[in-house]
Amino acid sequence: MKSIFYSRFFILLPWVLIVIIVMDIDTKRSSVRSTAGSYLARLGDTQRRERPAHAAPAGANRTALQPLIYAVTPTYSRAVQKAELTRLANTFRQVHRFHWVVVEDAGARTELVARFLARCGVPYTHLHALTPRRFKRSGMPRATEQRNAALGWLRTHRATREPGVVFFADDDNTYSLELFEEMRSTRGVSVWPVGLVGGRRYERPIVENGKVVGWYTGWRADRPFAIDMAGFAVNLQVILANPRALFKRRGAKPGMQESDFLKQITRVEDLEPKAKNCTQVLVWHTRTEKVNLGNEPKRHQDSLMIEV
Amino acid sequence: MKSIFYSRFFILLPWVLIVIIVMDIDTKRSSVRSTAGSYLARLGDTQRRERPAHAAPAGANRTALQPLIYAVTPTYSRAVQKAELTRLANTFRQVHRFHWVVVEDAGARTELVARFLARCGVPYTHLHALTPRRFKRSGMPRATEQRNAALGWLRTHRATREPGVVFFADDDNTYSLELFEEMRSTRGVSVWPVGLVGGRRYERPIVENGKVVGWYTGWRADRPFAIDMAGFAVNLQVILANPRALFKRRGAKPGMQESDFLKQITRVEDLEPKAKNCTQVLVWHTRTEKVNLGNEPKRHQDSLMIEV
Repeated sequence: MKSIFYSRFFILLPWVLIVIIVMDIDTKRSSVRSTAGSYLARLGDTQRRERPAHAAPAGANRTALQPLIYAVTPTYSRAVQKAELTRLANTFRQVHRFHWVVVEDAGARTELVARFLARCGVPYTHLHALTPRRFKRSGMPRATEQRNAALGWLRTHRATREPGVVFFADDDNTYSLELFEEMRSTRGVSVWPVGLVGGRRYERPIVENGKVVGWYTGWRADRPFAIDMAGFAVNLQVILANPRALFKRRGAKPGMQESDFLKQITRVEDLEPKAKNCTQVLVWHTRTEKVNLGNEPKRHQDSLMIEV
Repeated sequence: MKSIFYSRFFILLPWVLIVIIVMDIDTKRSSVRSTAGSYLARLGDTQRRERPAHAAPAGANRTALQPLIYAVTPTYSRAVQKAELTRLANTFRQVHRFHWVVVEDAGARTELVARFLARCGVPYTHLHALTPRRFKRSGMPRATEQRNAALGWLRTHRATREPGVVFFADDDNTYSLELFEEMRSTRGVSVWPVGLVGGRRYERPIVENGKVVGWYTGWRADRPFAIDMAGFAVNLQVILANPRALFKRRGAKPGMQESDFLKQITRVEDLEPKAKNCTQVLVWHTRTEKVNLGNEPKRHQDSLMIEV
């Protein structure tokens, strides 16, 4: 009798241990898709992969239900371009369920950006759209063609019912990680404060009883949506349900791009305030100084060609 | 006979499974100390902890032998301060075996920086050192007192034989993650190229047969070490073995801080070239534009006080 008890015990014990260990793994493994460690390890063998694998994380069934964040980043060739993309990637690498749509202002994808993206450890799509020369003047809104190219890509490559959130992430702003978790629950169009914009420390939607009722801004308070490009996100399904909503060239004025676009897809009273009813600054409209290259030699002087 | 075989088999099988599962966990768990996921989870309960716990990672015995990187960041109060610290933390959070020494130019630690650091997910030490008013002039080197305060802290709080590497990480530069893995093996003083500095696309040490033999620079090529603050790292033991080596005020000129400091602790021929013999740009001397606050109201107009 005793020996039967012991044999049953020793047969059951390890199975119980297995169950406990497996449950422990599932809870401890992070839901972060790609860690810095695996990113650095990957840098060694970038030749083989055109883009990072979408590794299915443990606990994928939990995260798969979360909307994918599509960050649309227009970028153009200049001295600080790779530096800006580097610090963006350093931030975006830590956001799970994230897809980076990088749109170059160029007639074709450049080698520099293609090489950078292939190694950056962030899932991405690399597009290009050239701004016609007649629009490259001061006083003209910028990055219109690039943002519209990204909208076009979403409309042709993403299906209705796919959960997603679209955000316009310019390449010199500063983003906290919390911002992405705030915007992830966007059902229609969500809004939040932006730091260092409009000649003020911050601009923000004014919220009463959970609704946007006005704008705290230092610049053109008459704008229908007095908000910066970094201050809102749109549910993917809203983008797909409004196939003609685009950023405008004709009749557009600088600073009115956001309003022109948003009024095609939403109304002020339907906006969803994020960041604790728009009382937290989680994104900053930083601007990087133009680089002084006054000492750059006219002809190449170094013995090597070095990418910067 | 058959039944004994089966019973033995079923007793051994689960133990074999347990061994396989445990080995699998050990190899799959990342060595990254703190992931973005755990950082975001921690944000909820920051009240209790003054600073993030130094969680012992699985595989700690492997990483514990690696030198700890001490990044010294002088910072001062201004509109973009929190934004700059945010993007630095977003980068540094992904570097394992890392300790951030943040030194404020202030008479006391500020609430803003203290609160930021407590929540940032990077192990840190928070110091302060006020720059005397007479040194706050253009043409004077900057952040001297703050860097020296960090050196003083290292000398009083770190022991000989502790493996470490000290790096001066200004708060507006752009750092790739690869840079930190390059500097981690510094035995004495290591050097590498810096992008967007000295009026050129990059400056770099010129290396022949593994030794630094000169400098590719567009500005004051007569400097003994024609290198930016972001272009070198020093082994902790070199800092401890030269207790009087400091950044100078007396007789110091802007742009000479690096040379004045380095000639107290090393010689050009002893420098260790990193980043593939100084042919890769892994750090950029970016500068953030001063913020235009022209529309900021003289008196507080918003109904709330919002930190930016």
